Amino acid sequence: MTKPTRRDLANAIRFLAADAVEAAKSGHPGMPMGMADIAEVLWNDYLGHSPDNPKWFNRDRFLLSNGHGSMLQYALLHLAGYDLTLEDLKNFRQLGFRTPGHPENFVTPGVETTTGPLGQGFANAVGFALAEKLLAQRYNRPEYAVVDHRTWVFMGDGCMMEGISHEAASLAGTLGLGKLVAFWDDNGISIDGEVEGWFTDDTPARFEAYGWLVIRDVDGHDADAIRKAIDQAMAQDERPVLLCCRTTIGFGSPAKAGKESSHGAPLGADEIAATRKALGWEYGAFEIPDAIYDGWRANGSGKVREEQWNRLFDAYAQRHPQLAAELTRRSHGELPEDFAAAAAAYIAKLQADGPTVASRKASQMAIEAFAPHLPELLGGSADLAASNLTLWSGSKTAAGDDPDANYVYYGVREFAMTAISNGLALHGGFIPYDATFLVFSDYARNAVRMGALMEAHAIHVYTHDSIGLGEDGPTHQPVEHLASLRLIPHNDVWRPCDAVESAVAWKAAIERKDGPSCLVFSRQNLPHQARTDGQLGQIVRGGYVLADAEGGAPDLILIATGSEVGLAMQARAALDADGVRTRVVSMPSSDVFDRQDPAYRESVLPGGCRRRLAIEAGVTDFWRKYVGLDGAVIGLDRFGASAPAGALFEHFGFTVEKVLEAARSL
Amino acid sequence: MTKPTRRDLANAIRFLAADAVEAAKSGHPGMPMGMADIAEVLWNDYLGHSPDNPKWFNRDRFLLSNGHGSMLQYALLHLAGYDLTLEDLKNFRQLGFRTPGHPENFVTPGVETTTGPLGQGFANAVGFALAEKLLAQRYNRPEYAVVDHRTWVFMGDGCMMEGISHEAASLAGTLGLGKLVAFWDDNGISIDGEVEGWFTDDTPARFEAYGWLVIRDVDGHDADAIRKAIDQAMAQDERPVLLCCRTTIGFGSPAKAGKESSHGAPLGADEIAATRKALGWEYGAFEIPDAIYDGWRANGSGKVREEQWNRLFDAYAQRHPQLAAELTRRSHGELPEDFAAAAAAYIAKLQADGPTVASRKASQMAIEAFAPHLPELLGGSADLAASNLTLWSGSKTAAGDDPDANYVYYGVREFAMTAISNGLALHGGFIPYDATFLVFSDYARNAVRMGALMEAHAIHVYTHDSIGLGEDGPTHQPVEHLASLRLIPHNDVWRPCDAVESAVAWKAAIERKDGPSCLVFSRQNLPHQARTDGQLGQIVRGGYVLADAEGGAPDLILIATGSEVGLAMQARAALDADGVRTRVVSMPSSDVFDRQDPAYRESVLPGGCRRRLAIEAGVTDFWRKYVGLDGAVIGLDRFGASAPAGALFEHFGFTVEKVLEAARSL
Repeated sequence: MTKPTRRDLANAIRFLAADAVEAAKSGHPGMPMGMADIAEVLWNDYLGHSPDNPKWFNRDRFLLSNGHGSMLQYALLHLAGYDLTLEDLKNFRQLGFRTPGHPENFVTPGVETTTGPLGQGFANAVGFALAEKLLAQRYNRPEYAVVDHRTWVFMGDGCMMEGISHEAASLAGTLGLGKLVAFWDDNGISIDGEVEGWFTDDTPARFEAYGWLVIRDVDGHDADAIRKAIDQAMAQDERPVLLCCRTTIGFGSPAKAGKESSHGAPLGADEIAATRKALGWEYGAFEIPDAIYDGWRANGSGKVREEQWNRLFDAYAQRHPQLAAELTRRSHGELPEDFAAAAAAYIAKLQADGPTVASRKASQMAIEAFAPHLPELLGGSADLAASNLTLWSGSKTAAGDDPDANYVYYGVREFAMTAISNGLALHGGFIPYDATFLVFSDYARNAVRMGALMEAHAIHVYTHDSIGLGEDGPTHQPVEHLASLRLIPHNDVWRPCDAVESAVAWKAAIERKDGPSCLVFSRQNLPHQARTDGQLGQIVRGGYVLADAEGGAPDLILIATGSEVGLAMQARAALDADGVRTRVVSMPSSDVFDRQDPAYRESVLPGGCRRRLAIEAGVTDFWRKYVGLDGAVIGLDRFGASAPAGALFEHFGFTVEKVLEAARSL
Repeated sequence: MTKPTRRDLANAIRFLAADAVEAAKSGHPGMPMGMADIAEVLWNDYLGHSPDNPKWFNRDRFLLSNGHGSMLQYALLHLAGYDLTLEDLKNFRQLGFRTPGHPENFVTPGVETTTGPLGQGFANAVGFALAEKLLAQRYNRPEYAVVDHRTWVFMGDGCMMEGISHEAASLAGTLGLGKLVAFWDDNGISIDGEVEGWFTDDTPARFEAYGWLVIRDVDGHDADAIRKAIDQAMAQDERPVLLCCRTTIGFGSPAKAGKESSHGAPLGADEIAATRKALGWEYGAFEIPDAIYDGWRANGSGKVREEQWNRLFDAYAQRHPQLAAELTRRSHGELPEDFAAAAAAYIAKLQADGPTVASRKASQMAIEAFAPHLPELLGGSADLAASNLTLWSGSKTAAGDDPDANYVYYGVREFAMTAISNGLALHGGFIPYDATFLVFSDYARNAVRMGALMEAHAIHVYTHDSIGLGEDGPTHQPVEHLASLRLIPHNDVWRPCDAVESAVAWKAAIERKDGPSCLVFSRQNLPHQARTDGQLGQIVRGGYVLADAEGGAPDLILIATGSEVGLAMQARAALDADGVRTRVVSMPSSDVFDRQDPAYRESVLPGGCRRRLAIEAGVTDFWRKYVGLDGAVIGLDRFGASAPAGALFEHFGFTVEKVLEAARSL
């Protein structure tokens, strides 16, 4: 092969994708074949990255929201020289290789986020672009644009149909994220066939309605047209940009191009052969001529850019040493050295002061205490700031160009908010916290899950945690949500019982670098609990003995969380008076407790004591893991009702009397 | 009072709302005060309804998507003469009254749907309008437009920001639901304040991009302008209509009108007094002059319309007796008399034939068997028809005007799809089923919950139910979803182990009139299980003994669902050979099993046998309710991985060997 054409370079993607899908006997060849030309132009002519150093902080970010086209990304990474081998590609979708069915940031070097659930990669991209904007406005100085990169995201018709695309695009437009560029793969095909039957939006007009710069009618198979469109996108940075790229799904396949049959199944050996012929590709499966590799690695601009940036950053560090140090710390995901001590001091003082407040208020107090130490703490709420209590005295809106901006008014967009948090966390430089009512975690649920899967360090604040929210009624009263969030693997749920546990939960969430935490708070006041220093130190273990039978093993263990800990303590007093030696275990985080060593767990819940009663204003099934078949659970296995909180707790049996009744029946 | 003006009629709403919120010490006065004039015109001049008969089938449907403004709806219902008393209004948000914080269809006569979680009422409305369209095209005949009503929905900025508004509006535009009219309460305020900081969409342009007829700049406080706009909306029925109504939140309140302070808190006694003065309202709290009642009940058009319709329907029934009978049956939510027997016969034949198929395929076979009996069965999938296997030989798209239309291509819109299902079910005349991958139930989760709360008879088909989906990897592999759907109160989850259980689950879901069912199916083949007639009859009880130790009580019980039942049966053979008397309990629906009488439950899971081992390819915590602290669970408490299904089951320990190991350790 002599010097390859652009089409040749793109065809390398096409055949790596088609052949890998064929080898795996499953996968999605259509999208990579359709978007190959766009990807080739973007990666070879524009993308600022450094294949040898995938974590270079000022790299451009490339996200694949239509993640089923993962082979596009793997082919790109391989061709561009990332640490992803032909062996990985040959073993697409096999156990133990770095080429899973959908891109996974925690598996594959160069993959920025995990995608597949449609629309979320696009919302992640909004988070990435927001992170860049906010870091730039805080850290850049004249002549020192140390934060200056773009976020590029590919998306398909499926992403466009998902509601999250509306939420994310709307907010990106309002925030003017001008360095976000989205490529819409407008191929007219989704899994059920030609989209006319179910998707007839005027998408360009829709995005213009969000304040985006929309570049229409780009021929996604014409490199010059693609270049022209990208140049136009980059000529401004006031508005996010949508490039509407007309493409042919399965481009090159004589029988399947333009058809849904190329979307999600192997083309078949005969059709791949026919495609080779049609595209004039003379090489075997996984055979890439050196000239193609050379073409993909010709300009080496990534390395050059990284080196330029290193020099720039060195000069910046001379001129602005404090800023440089802070940015470096943040970009490495390190907390300030004094954070742990300051937080511990705050917690000790709280224990001494003993305030009785709603835990949502305690949450705000914790933010107020911790945020001055943490410029990386970036808050927000889905239009419930005054209810979630997410604002603190230093909050500055992210909507303008304030260098201290640290708060996002997300609007009523729970799902995009959460996916944007994931994007902010994955970009680096931020610890995002978002907020809504606990019941509306439902709206965001798959983004919570995705954050847990991708090990994104995000904090989700959920207030109004039970029927204790009162009059708003069952539509707003979480019942199953605590239990159901605890079921998400690698997600830490905290439901503190007082201001002290609330602060400990916040500290734990801030210090948990490799995954998300859900902090669940009450609307109503919760009484302060007395603790020894030893008990104070055990909160962080997720469950601990808050009050114990004196001088010996307990006859009965009450296990409770949040607002029900106070109830358990009241009941304990009555039981003790009756001569029932009663232990109260406060269990703010069962996720964390379950990770403790067996000896500690046994010390809290001794196997010999089967008289166990769990109390939580939510569904009961979850608690069987601690109380077993011999214990009991006081909870709520039905929807709530609209009434003042006190009336509801009484009505649904969260009273000392009912606890005693249940305890005595054991 | 002499003849009241329109403004007087509207002010009655304003003060009922403000005074009720004041009495409750919580609630949302701003929206009712802002939308009162619009509501007055709509209800008095246009709404086709019959307050004495709230269930009149051909009534117009009125939905309040911004459900926090519930006092608007309660005031309307009371003033218009529904069975909702002043006593109810005075006890707004109190236990036991029919005026909960957000409208609840199962509590208050005249409330069509339960709202509060923003955007969903709007999507419900799309379902209502779709129901009307499909019933009209099936049942109407020349001169007999027996189905002919409109769906009116109020929505606020919050609804507009939610992603579901995009999904629902886009589909409504594509389907051309011309008898759907939405009123956007464009008041520029959401909870966090003036929306400019977070909501700057050109909403009219956005809806035009969906193909809606958009009527801009309607003065929401000018009755003539409102009339003109509604007339324009009704002059066509090709396109859904958005009326963009500029309003002032808290209209009339001197200090709080136009401000977020009127949104979600009582105005305060002084401010209400000032508002009375400003609006010239001379009556006390909950004091409604007769002239106002007379004004609200003057035209009596509802009654007239109902009587006209009754005459029309009688004539129709003469002319088209079969159609009339079928429509009557469907509108009453009754199944055909022969359904139960036909379904039972199909199930018996399946048991005899013993096919080994994927349960998703078994689901399609059940649809194919049952649907010919059930014109009310309205299918659909979120762009996964060929994967969910939701199409059957009689499927006809709802996009056109086919009288037999029974299938909706929902596009990639899981959340709207599910909320639309709720709307279809609540409208009446349909048993909707929708479908996606189980993992994407997350996207729709709050609509599943709302359907359970509202007792909506909808069926959610979720396929690809575990790591058994294989190569698509952890983003697509449900792990916590089965357990977490089971936690939603009043929601029945089924995970059948073979074709027979799949058909029984379908039959149960069709026959369960007062709530939703989630039917969870495998991608991969599941072996047929032998059953006696007795066992066959017990499937519907949710859990039953599929295989037992011979001649006496079991030493060990294996409990399993779905694909793991086959594994349990294999393990049982090995255990029996070892002399361990082993029972296998198949538990396709723990929700249903838990509702059985104690004696039956004891017969399946005898309290005396504590050696219990549950097996399910998902999180383990849920199963502790059956196995307790002495038993064990084989499951998956982490995310899955991308690989062929067989490799994954082996890798994650779903093997006979591991089951035996666990069983022997008990």
